[in-house]
Amino acid sequence: MSIFTKIINGEIPSYKVAEDDNFIAFLDINPNTKGHTLVVPKKEENKIFDLSKEEYSLLMDFSYRVAKAIEKAVECKRVGMSVIGLEVPHVHVHLIPINEMADMQFQQKAKLSNEEFVSLAKSIAQSFE
Amino acid sequence: MSIFTKIINGEIPSYKVAEDDNFIAFLDINPNTKGHTLVVPKKEENKIFDLSKEEYSLLMDFSYRVAKAIEKAVECKRVGMSVIGLEVPHVHVHLIPINEMADMQFQQKAKLSNEEFVSLAKSIAQSFE
Repeated sequence: MSIFTKIINGEIPSYKVAEDDNFIAFLDINPNTKGHTLVVPKKEENKIFDLSKEEYSLLMDFSYRVAKAIEKAVECKRVGMSVIGLEVPHVHVHLIPINEMADMQFQQKAKLSNEEFVSLAKSIAQSFE
Repeated sequence: MSIFTKIINGEIPSYKVAEDDNFIAFLDINPNTKGHTLVVPKKEENKIFDLSKEEYSLLMDFSYRVAKAIEKAVECKRVGMSVIGLEVPHVHVHLIPINEMADMQFQQKAKLSNEEFVSLAKSIAQSFE
């Protein structure tokens, strides 16, 4: 069982920003930048392009809605999107508020307190449509 | 007019792998890895999440088909996807054959000859469905 499935099952707590029957979105706790969010299908699949076209399209649509919410809640030049998946074998879409290229390189990390994570998740959740 | 629009118009040559009425996919000539491909909407829009939901969904669907073709044509652990857009203000989806995290960081670059680009583009194009 992946760490994301444990989050989906509530066995591991998360700063949730959006959820429906098929997907969940929560803050990355080791974020590149403030507002870095992961969108995860509840069905555990390793590689994004192994999802069926239908599952993939629903995931991308859900990610679009989450990205729009992040743009409203977090000041940034734009929201970047990245799918890599070499570390956790459960599909996850990174949505990252960015101002410069380094924000997309998974090297620099932002530090947030628990209170900042809670407040940020609430702010994105309230912008989610 | 963006450099990608010049490619779409044929003013700048490219190693094309797929095209339809709305989108074009061609090899990145400064690739992270061999097979690094860009998928671009013919309509010039700066930010991906400023596309309408419909335009975005079509772009993501086209990217899925290109990614599947890359997986068939290029040996790799998986195909990564990234949308950043800070440098060229015309939406482009990076599809990158990856084996390790560094392949997604836009720092290391692969060198290919013209002949290698031509052969690679042909190979991906033949796998495109």
